[in-house]
Parts: sequence; structure tokens; C-alpha cells
Amino acid sequence: MAIQGIKAQYEHRGPVPQDVIQALAFEPPAPGSGQALVAVLAAPINPSDVLMLTGGYGILPPLPAVGGSEGVGRVISVGEGVSHLAAGQTVLLPAGSGTWASHLVADAKRLVPLPAGADAQQLSMLTVNPATASLMLSEFVALQPGDWVIQNVANSGVGGYLTQLARLRGLRTVNIVRRESAAAVVKADGGDVVLVDGDDLARRVKDAVSGAPIRLGLDAVGGKATNRLAMCVAEGGTVINYGLMSGEPCVVSPQSFVFNDLTLRGFWLAKWFRTASREAQMALYGELTKLIATGQLKVRIHATYPVEQIKEAIAAAASGERDGKILVVPHP
Amino acid sequence: MAIQGIKAQYEHRGPVPQDVIQALAFEPPAPGSGQALVAVLAAPINPSDVLMLTGGYGILPPLPAVGGSEGVGRVISVGEGVSHLAAGQTVLLPAGSGTWASHLVADAKRLVPLPAGADAQQLSMLTVNPATASLMLSEFVALQPGDWVIQNVANSGVGGYLTQLARLRGLRTVNIVRRESAAAVVKADGGDVVLVDGDDLARRVKDAVSGAPIRLGLDAVGGKATNRLAMCVAEGGTVINYGLMSGEPCVVSPQSFVFNDLTLRGFWLAKWFRTASREAQMALYGELTKLIATGQLKVRIHATYPVEQIKEAIAAAASGERDGKILVVPHP
Repeated sequence: MAIQGIKAQYEHRGPVPQDVIQALAFEPPAPGSGQALVAVLAAPINPSDVLMLTGGYGILPPLPAVGGSEGVGRVISVGEGVSHLAAGQTVLLPAGSGTWASHLVADAKRLVPLPAGADAQQLSMLTVNPATASLMLSEFVALQPGDWVIQNVANSGVGGYLTQLARLRGLRTVNIVRRESAAAVVKADGGDVVLVDGDDLARRVKDAVSGAPIRLGLDAVGGKATNRLAMCVAEGGTVINYGLMSGEPCVVSPQSFVFNDLTLRGFWLAKWFRTASREAQMALYGELTKLIATGQLKVRIHATYPVEQIKEAIAAAASGERDGKILVVPHP
Repeated sequence: MAIQGIKAQYEHRGPVPQDVIQALAFEPPAPGSGQALVAVLAAPINPSDVLMLTGGYGILPPLPAVGGSEGVGRVISVGEGVSHLAAGQTVLLPAGSGTWASHLVADAKRLVPLPAGADAQQLSMLTVNPATASLMLSEFVALQPGDWVIQNVANSGVGGYLTQLARLRGLRTVNIVRRESAAAVVKADGGDVVLVDGDDLARRVKDAVSGAPIRLGLDAVGGKATNRLAMCVAEGGTVINYGLMSGEPCVVSPQSFVFNDLTLRGFWLAKWFRTASREAQMALYGELTKLIATGQLKVRIHATYPVEQIKEAIAAAASGERDGKILVVPHP
């Protein structure tokens, strides 16, 4: 008996992401040799997914494409030659596999078994955001317990993981938000200092950390927000831009570079995957899986949507006035 | 018999640099124990000197101050206990010693003897610009002979040294200028490619280097010029900002950081002095002295002025329409 499936597909790109994607019925194929058919349990909408719809991302899949780049599923059936997976197993879906769908067929070797009973919605966000937060804390500046880190958009997905991971590692965080109403949730994540962005930010930050040097800043906004963050880091410090939330270019005064020895760099998880060893990848995801499965690391979920409501889900994800992630949940 | 001296002094700072500085008569003191009295032969006006008058520099001397941070002089007399210098010796003046003056008294140990008969005007510029150019080529990216480097303001003092040093090291340069009339002098310096800045710069640069990767860019402008340079460097490349010529903050698209793994840093010679070993400093200045004394490294001189005409000299240095350095020459 054929399965009735549904998938969120786009055939062209455009400036309004919810206009280019639509939910389409489809019939999932039977898994071929070495493959598995998976029912998707949960898949997040990340900013990078939205940028793939608008064309603003650094890698764009060929069209037509199914949206969604990560998620968790449950194995329904396996093809010939697959012995390490069985129906009912919860698995992490391969990165970039088009996860906003009720079902997908994947290479069984790329499906990572997950602990039984773990929170599928929390684990569906494992691949992208917590890894980004973890690597930005470890790959650029050698931080010691007690050191301060500053970030803006602290109430974002990456921001929430970053605050929690920093605390688990004994680091202290200055968290910048764009509205007062976002401060409480960042405090709940364990943020040591939470401040609303503004022109006298550097002075307020200095007061809040009693003049302690801040050697790492994480910027997901761009525009003049990059400069405000750069003004908060100590001489010789590093600011990492990883997001384009303002849609504006990063602006930083030459004085910061010349006189304050600032380094401005970027982070892109896709690039890390291209260069990191398999051992480094396994170590990172092993640690993060454990932290998420045991509830030590979690992110707020603002709302969940079925695949049928993909347009509403995308619109909600693109809105700035939320304090948690938007998930596509085909099988609640 | 007392010597009649003249010095270019400022007692406050302000936005128009030639308005705050004036030539004042003074009587140079006799050299004390361990000191030497020096007649200044030549001292350049660098952009950093002008920024000290306007207050835009990273270190500002206490007021009142004599302008000028480097130069060459001739020893007139020495104080008690000075045996390694004698009257008539040509010397390099100590960095930051207030060189826009007919005479100065300095710690004799900080005066570096120069080869007899060497070009005093060329050597007067040794400390700042050629060292900046040399270090920017060596301290950030490991370049191999044949590699390409790109710079803007290629017709500046640092730019001219950079083109020549790159050629001496077997590197190839793409040189960006802001007006067509500046191209010829950069060609004369040995620039491999010279282009006028503009919005389609990245495409024209790519054509000119036949798609070869450019891993180092040197930006003295800021504003959107930083972004135009950033668009020319290869994935994983580095742009160094060392100047503030546009008076505008550096602007770079987040895409360059996130997707192209750009690193944006700054260079400040004063900072290098604070951290470089004495051996590294001697090696650098030994090499540069030899190159300048033998005429392998030289910079165009646009005009020379006596100390009495310091206001005209500063105004000329602040003008963009020149193709060489402005020198203060108290003793022609």
C-alpha cells in the first residue's frame, strides 16, 4: 500500500520566502539497496534555510528542492543490505537532506541512531545551531574558565545554545538583545549580563564586567551593531560575524583595527564540515548529543507547524518578535 | 654663542591641522650628560603626524608638543660621557622625538649612525612607512614568490614602498588608485597591475590576474573601499586596514566573512614596536637602511618646506592631489 506523503518544495527563489515554497503531496518511494525510508518527526527552520529560499546563502541546492537542512526521523523500512538499522529506530537525518517533509529516503549509512526516548524536537536542532555555538567558542580564541564573551541576538537559537555552553564551560557571557522583553529568556538561559543594544553599549558593558577584558565577540547582526560589539572587546580581541540579521554590511571603525588590533572574521558551519576531520566531527556531535539528550542543553520552541502550513511557519520564523525556534513537525 | 632655533609646535588640537601648529623661535639647550645636540636635515609629514594634530591618533603626546615623529639629523655637539658619536655624524632621529624643528636634543644612545654620504631625505622616512610596508607583507600571510598582493592608495608613501618591496621579494602587486593621473607613478614603482577604483573592481582585478588567488589585501581608505578590496581576495584571504584616508568606517558585507572566510585585521607600527624583540627590530631596520642607502628603495618627494612654512607644508600633506611625500627640511 502506497504511503501518502507531503513535502515543502520550492521551484524558484525570491525575496519573500513564504511565497516561493509550497506544500505538495507526493508518494515516497520504497527504499532502494542501502537506503532507508524515514518518517520525519521534527525539523527546524533556521535562518540559513530561509536564505536558501531567497538566494542569499553561500551554497544553493539545484531546483526544485525540498526545504530544511536538518531534523530527526523514525525508520519505517530499510532496503536491501541494511543491517544496522531497523524499523522504529529514531535517527538523526543527514545534513542538507530536505527535511521539511513527512517522509524521506536516505542513504542508511548517513542516518545516525539516537538514544531511545530522547526528545526528538530538541535533537532535531542538533546539527546546525549548537555546533555553530560550540565551535565559535572553541575555534578562534583560547578562552579560560572565568573569561568573558559577548554576543548580540542572545535570544536567537545559536545565542541560547551559546549562553548555555559558555556556562557549562565556566565562561561568563555578556548578552545583547534588541528589546527589553527578550532579556528575561536570556537570563533564564544562564546569561551573566543581559543588556539592550544602544549607542553607549561599550560603557555599559565595561561597567557590567567591572572593566574585565572581553576577548571574543559574536555578531549575528551586521551593520553598525558590529561596530558597537567591536567597541566592547579588549585590545587584540576578535569579533566573529556569523549572521546577516540586519541585512546590512558590517561597519567597523578603522581605529578599532589599527589602534585596538581588532580581528574581524566569519564563521560558517558548512566550511568547517569541509575541513574538519571525521574524529573532530564525531567528538563534537557526541558531546552535543549527550548534552541535549540529558537536557543540559536545550532551546526554546516558539511554535510547531505541520508541513501543510509551511508558508505560515516560514513567515513566523522570519519574524523578529519571537523567543524560540519554529519547527516543522510532520508526525507529532 | 647661543644657537637660534625654530620649531613647529602645537598647544592644542583641532580639526584643521595647519591652524593648530605654528613655527616658534627657540634656543636649543646645550646637550646634557649622555645627550647630543642635533641639527635636523629632513623630517617627513606622515598621515599619522597629521592625526596627532587633529586628535585622531591612537597615542597623543602631552601638550605643548613639537610635531614630527621621524627624521635624519647631523650631530652638532655631544654632552659628557658620549664617545660613540662625534660632531658631523649623520644620524637617524629617535621615533616620536618632535622632528619638525631646526634642532633637537636627544638621548645619544637612541641616535643611530647612518652611512656617510647617504641620501638624508630618503633616509628621513625610514622609520615609519617602509617598515609598515615591509611588516604588512610579512606578518599576516605566508606569501611565496609569484603570489599576488592587492593594495589601494598605491601612490601613497606606504604604497610606493610596498610595490617596490613586493617586487624585490618576487611578489606581484595589484595597485588600486583613485584617479587615472596617479597610475603612471605606480607603474614606475614597478606595480604589475594598476587599476582605478570603482564598483566593478573585483571583476577587473580577476581579469587582470587571470583568476589567480589573491590572499592579502592592504586597505588605507576604509568606507566602502574596504569592501571593494575584500571582494578581490580569495576564500580564506586577509585584508589589513592600516589607514583612515576616507574618514569613514570600514564597510564589509557579512557574506565575505561568513561564506568567503575573510579575515579583517589592522596594522599599527607603534603596536609592533611594543611587542617585537630588539633583534627583530634591528633585522628589519638593517635591511631597510641598506635598501634605501643603495637606492633600491625610494619614495617620490613632492615638495620640501622650511620649518617657517609649517602651515603650508601641513596643508600640502593633507591634500590628496600629490604624488609624493612632503618633507620639512630645516637645513637644506
